[in-house]
Amino acid sequence: MMQLMKYCCNCGADVHFIDVEGDNRKRFVCDNCKTIHYTNPKVVAGALVYWEDKVLLCKRAIEPRFGYWNLPAGYLEDGETSEEGAAREVMEEAGAEFILKGVHAVYNLPQANQVYIHFLGELKDGKYANGPESIETALFTEEQIPWNDMAFTSSYFALKRYFEDKRNGVEKTHLGTFPQKK
Amino acid sequence: MMQLMKYCCNCGADVHFIDVEGDNRKRFVCDNCKTIHYTNPKVVAGALVYWEDKVLLCKRAIEPRFGYWNLPAGYLEDGETSEEGAAREVMEEAGAEFILKGVHAVYNLPQANQVYIHFLGELKDGKYANGPESIETALFTEEQIPWNDMAFTSSYFALKRYFEDKRNGVEKTHLGTFPQKK
Repeated sequence: MMQLMKYCCNCGADVHFIDVEGDNRKRFVCDNCKTIHYTNPKVVAGALVYWEDKVLLCKRAIEPRFGYWNLPAGYLEDGETSEEGAAREVMEEAGAEFILKGVHAVYNLPQANQVYIHFLGELKDGKYANGPESIETALFTEEQIPWNDMAFTSSYFALKRYFEDKRNGVEKTHLGTFPQKK
Repeated sequence: MMQLMKYCCNCGADVHFIDVEGDNRKRFVCDNCKTIHYTNPKVVAGALVYWEDKVLLCKRAIEPRFGYWNLPAGYLEDGETSEEGAAREVMEEAGAEFILKGVHAVYNLPQANQVYIHFLGELKDGKYANGPESIETALFTEEQIPWNDMAFTSSYFALKRYFEDKRNGVEKTHLGTFPQKK
């Protein structure tokens, strides 16, 4: 999945995907002003927010994966720290605040040029609500989680590692990659 | 620091930075084809590579911060996992391979729209060399590190936490932000 670029955003001339001197891969380069337009993966910031023995999930009201459950997460915006992005997404999608506990997982989705950073947080005062991007927001015990209706493997990974850690009495940062990666 | 966008990379028409319905911040939107061009922070992938009681640093042969010391790191490329990006950068800048030990630090530089992911790794066979982007590559004990000649605070943060962890006999993942953040 590569971002398409046909015209130069700097001067409006044609752009071609070509070899660049001193570089080891093709880049989008402007025919006219010679600007090299780099494309890079995006950060998806989110959080696994717990309250007592439950975790907070949102049922997606947007595509992709409309109607499936997910940890609140979304693209990090310019000017944000990764934990600020996660806090914003948790508020937008789950109407909730959390007390930051640490970095729970770094999860690569190279096919989509994404790197998830999932933080671990404790739900503040047990309060949550539905954000505009969610059909439903709810707390689930491990047994109650709709494992077969999860939107993305990033959430599945983060949740599985969380409950494993809990059983083992540890709190670690996990590194994972979408399994279909060659 | 915001990426400038004057023309639409999809159709070449004028782009303006305007409010978008259903969104909570201004975006670059094409006057003609109405494409919304999102801009997001980039991931900088790197590694703190150790060998016995020393760590691997590179003296930068490129701007910015030419001539200053740094942990090998650079922009993650499309299609890479974050640890693949770190491995590539360590090879390019320090001619070295490492055995991945874990996620050492997530470090935000919101002013530059960057999120560093620094991995911890053990240098393979103690071997390293100079990459084309380095004037010099060398192993340093904590006392030998040129602390006043470090290129970026991200490296300073990662190194300080590493030696603290070592003294405390722990291996943790650290979260940090460039101190000047408001």
